Amino acid sequence: MLRGSLDTLSHTAMKTKISVIVWNEFQHERQSSAIAEIYPDGMHQVIAQALRVGDADLEVGTATLDQPEHGLSEERLAGCDVLVWWGHKAHDQVDDAIVDRVQKRVLEGMGLIVLHSGHFSKIFRRMMGTNCSLKWREADEKERVWVVEPSHPIAAGLGEYFELPYEEMYGERFDIPQPDSTVFISWFEGGEVFRSGCTWERGHGRIFYFRPGHEAYPTYYDANVQKVLNNAVRWAAPRVNIVDNCPNAQPLEPIAKKALNFAKVGILQSTKDIQ
Amino acid sequence: MLRGSLDTLSHTAMKTKISVIVWNEFQHERQSSAIAEIYPDGMHQVIAQALRVGDADLEVGTATLDQPEHGLSEERLAGCDVLVWWGHKAHDQVDDAIVDRVQKRVLEGMGLIVLHSGHFSKIFRRMMGTNCSLKWREADEKERVWVVEPSHPIAAGLGEYFELPYEEMYGERFDIPQPDSTVFISWFEGGEVFRSGCTWERGHGRIFYFRPGHEAYPTYYDANVQKVLNNAVRWAAPRVNIVDNCPNAQPLEPIAKKALNFAKVGILQSTKDIQ
Amino acid sequence: MLRGSLDTLSHTAMKTKISVIVWNEFQHERQSSAIAEIYPDGMHQVIAQALRVGDADLEVGTATLDQPEHGLSEERLAGCDVLVWWGHKAHDQVDDAIVDRVQKRVLEGMGLIVLHSGHFSKIFRRMMGTNCSLKWREADEKERVWVVEPSHPIAAGLGEYFELPYEEMYGERFDIPQPDSTVFISWFEGGEVFRSGCTWERGHGRIFYFRPGHEAYPTYYDANVQKVLNNAVRWAAPRVNIVDNCPNAQPLEPIAKKALNFAKVGILQSTKDIQ
Amino acid sequence: MLRGSLDTLSHTAMKTKISVIVWNEFQHERQSSAIAEIYPDGMHQVIAQALRVGDADLEVGTATLDQPEHGLSEERLAGCDVLVWWGHKAHDQVDDAIVDRVQKRVLEGMGLIVLHSGHFSKIFRRMMGTNCSLKWREADEKERVWVVEPSHPIAAGLGEYFELPYEEMYGERFDIPQPDSTVFISWFEGGEVFRSGCTWERGHGRIFYFRPGHEAYPTYYDANVQKVLNNAVRWAAPRVNIVDNCPNAQPLEPIAKKALNFAKVGILQSTKDIQ
Repeated sequence: MLRGSLDTLSHTAMKTKISVIVWNEFQHERQSSAIAEIYPDGMHQVIAQALRVGDADLEVGTATLDQPEHGLSEERLAGCDVLVWWGHKAHDQVDDAIVDRVQKRVLEGMGLIVLHSGHFSKIFRRMMGTNCSLKWREADEKERVWVVEPSHPIAAGLGEYFELPYEEMYGERFDIPQPDSTVFISWFEGGEVFRSGCTWERGHGRIFYFRPGHEAYPTYYDANVQKVLNNAVRWAAPRVNIVDNCPNAQPLEPIAKKALNFAKVGILQSTKDIQ
Repeated sequence: MLRGSLDTLSHTAMKTKISVIVWNEFQHERQSSAIAEIYPDGMHQVIAQALRVGDADLEVGTATLDQPEHGLSEERLAGCDVLVWWGHKAHDQVDDAIVDRVQKRVLEGMGLIVLHSGHFSKIFRRMMGTNCSLKWREADEKERVWVVEPSHPIAAGLGEYFELPYEEMYGERFDIPQPDSTVFISWFEGGEVFRSGCTWERGHGRIFYFRPGHEAYPTYYDANVQKVLNNAVRWAAPRVNIVDNCPNAQPLEPIAKKALNFAKVGILQSTKDIQ
Repeated sequence: MLRGSLDTLSHTAMKTKISVIVWNEFQHERQSSAIAEIYPDGMHQVIAQALRVGDADLEVGTATLDQPEHGLSEERLAGCDVLVWWGHKAHDQVDDAIVDRVQKRVLEGMGLIVLHSGHFSKIFRRMMGTNCSLKWREADEKERVWVVEPSHPIAAGLGEYFELPYEEMYGERFDIPQPDSTVFISWFEGGEVFRSGCTWERGHGRIFYFRPGHEAYPTYYDANVQKVLNNAVRWAAPRVNIVDNCPNAQPLEPIAKKALNFAKVGILQSTKDIQ
Repeated sequence: MLRGSLDTLSHTAMKTKISVIVWNEFQHERQSSAIAEIYPDGMHQVIAQALRVGDADLEVGTATLDQPEHGLSEERLAGCDVLVWWGHKAHDQVDDAIVDRVQKRVLEGMGLIVLHSGHFSKIFRRMMGTNCSLKWREADEKERVWVVEPSHPIAAGLGEYFELPYEEMYGERFDIPQPDSTVFISWFEGGEVFRSGCTWERGHGRIFYFRPGHEAYPTYYDANVQKVLNNAVRWAAPRVNIVDNCPNAQPLEPIAKKALNFAKVGILQSTKDIQ
């Protein structure tokens, strides 16, 4: 069984690797010594490294808020298959023009993986259309992540659940549109539950939100978390790359001559005109 | 059987009427004599009148682009249960601050009904997160609207299909998130199909997109179209009114003392901070 | 605001009451003295009574396994708006012909509310098409039911969560089709989570599964549980009553004369033929 | 990019080929000379051949109604990755025990592709829980199949639409549960529309319904139809193989000693007990 082989050959242009960019606002790690101890080079480096050690089918780079265009130039995004996003305290410093650019690429087919506090990022809220708010608590508490959809590719290789001994709590209600698939639901020591792994399709792109990953804990070193990220990147890889248009279409069948003759308005619009 | 009676009594504050605002950009009707002949006072007036002739349970007003704040002041929107939206050539003239305001109200529970060329409005694209593009053609052609979900309240009182002898064509692919319910699918004389009646829930509000209603045709005088609008307004009426927050929550269960003690970051965020 | 009033008037035949049948296998209560102490007349009587004390808009009867046709004659089901189902140890004693009959009525528009161990009932598994299996444990443990969709009519009048001090545990993975709405998710003291309130539409009918209600605990006396049942019965009330058919349809448009002329097979089928 | 490679390596046991069984009731082709002219060896042979000419990643066999156990022994199904189903006039001759067996395998992870008049097959109606009825007409009419989800793997390599010059009409309402994805919607010359390509997940298996394929037309020789079938078989290939159970689970967290002590019922159930 070679699942997906057809996609590779005929559904997108043949490429040998999935190009991944791990984006991080990279502020906590430079402003807090406690957090710098856990992630001395930034969370993005630990996540990128975790993606590099798997099969050699990923090409992984990083980008950060303080780079020009936040490291997400037109050219770089054009070649990106999957964008992984971590942000928290500087969501409002992300330029709206870059958010537009990322959204456009997702709708064309690029994958987007949003981590933890990225629930409040501009790009996630843009893709969801909702507030994306939730309950939260920092209390060094245990999280048990239950696998609700074991057949989902993002759950491949996991057991029935995995545990994180120290995590921030996120609790329902999580203000998101109904997910296409709720892959994980978390149990928290302090009494809450949370839909911790959710997928959506928007335009031609796939989106995965994954809850764990508070900056003050070594979550991204966890083997199960790394497995989820590896799975998710492959699941979110583009199947197509389709640039949006809104065409005036000629009829495919004859249209009968009618008794009345109405005015034609003839406004040609594209999403570019109405931004 | 008194379906919904419980909602009325206990799920929202008791109100005697559903307050509806019919919003129109109101430009075609003042700039084209052919369109002015069909809708001399604007499409919003014909739609509003169609909603007023049913049961006396609706309180219907109108608003237009050229009014201060486009007729959608904080106060007026606060009292609005369902907003009906028609726009086409002036989407880009709608102030982003008003779009923010409408989105906030939908997420709190207000209903939103988007008509025809409103597929490209800022508010619809904001709620969907997608381009909302499609194929189109102005050719005086027949549209047959098939009822796919006869048990949906929006289809109440309709037959298996209804026809519009003159309409603009909209064709797939329509770039929207998978609808919660696809109530109508249209057949077009020229050979296309379209998901013409789609519902979504976002936050606590309900959204309905309804395809027919090109400005050059007398579509809003059609009895079936009017029935759909009447049904939709009632379906979209608020069930709750919940203001967004993102609370720091106290634990409900004891959290065990742990071996390690991590830093606390303690950032209080709300959707207001990150706009 | 009179949400739903339109449904009442035009979408179904005007009826003054929702007719509810509470069905119970009624075995535990007659075979175990411990359970008989809690539910001396059977769980169905406690549930029925809880539905009778609300608004006077419900007409509530009961039915049990040991009655002729399990109390669900053609005639009685024909007049039933919503069927509430509790079963556990005698699922296999339910006659397949009665299961066919109930399924037919749900597909025509009747509401179905399946409680707790009813997850393994023939009728629930028939409607879902899946195994409906789960994890379970009887350990006198605390369940906290979180409201994930506060705007859903079934959650009307509840707080952010409610607790049951003693319940059986049900844990994921729950083998069900993706619900239309996941209204509740439960947190269990012993470490599991569960999608405790799920809705689906099948045919023209609405289905709600509600997890709590183990026979050894006084769950159906709980005020929040009773509120959920009251809400659910009203939510599941029929919007239409449509008898299935599979018609041979005449064309609505002229079909061009073709070069080739193929054989006609002309098999008239209905679901009745193929049972 | 090697989409799906991870699935192959770690999500299921490594296999080199996808094993496909094309099942056909094989009656029309032996009873009607007109149909025998088009499909002299049966439709299953034409479909199987179409699957064999692609990449060498499929291992394709056939089975028919008149074979012992309809060609679907326990052993054969155990090794089957994807089952393709064509039936029409003999749905009621399919043994319920075989239907049970196929359902069990789908819920474990096997793919199921149901073709055309298979909408009324026992297995499809079992998986859906609905009547699966529709409108129909045999009138040598044109069908135009629109691609609604171009990024879906089943649509890979297709254009915006494809046409079948001669097909039976199927029209809405099609009585199915809301699909996970509506990949195709058909336009018919005679005026109807139909959701022609629909996907669902049930248990751990994937299901695809594909409308075209009336026995009196040479539809299965069409290049686009063959492409869809090739895509669908690969999309539906198993990601896991999980045998159903309903385990009594030990707690993962300490459960507090409670004031009251309720009876334990202790009924161990599995789906096998309740058939």
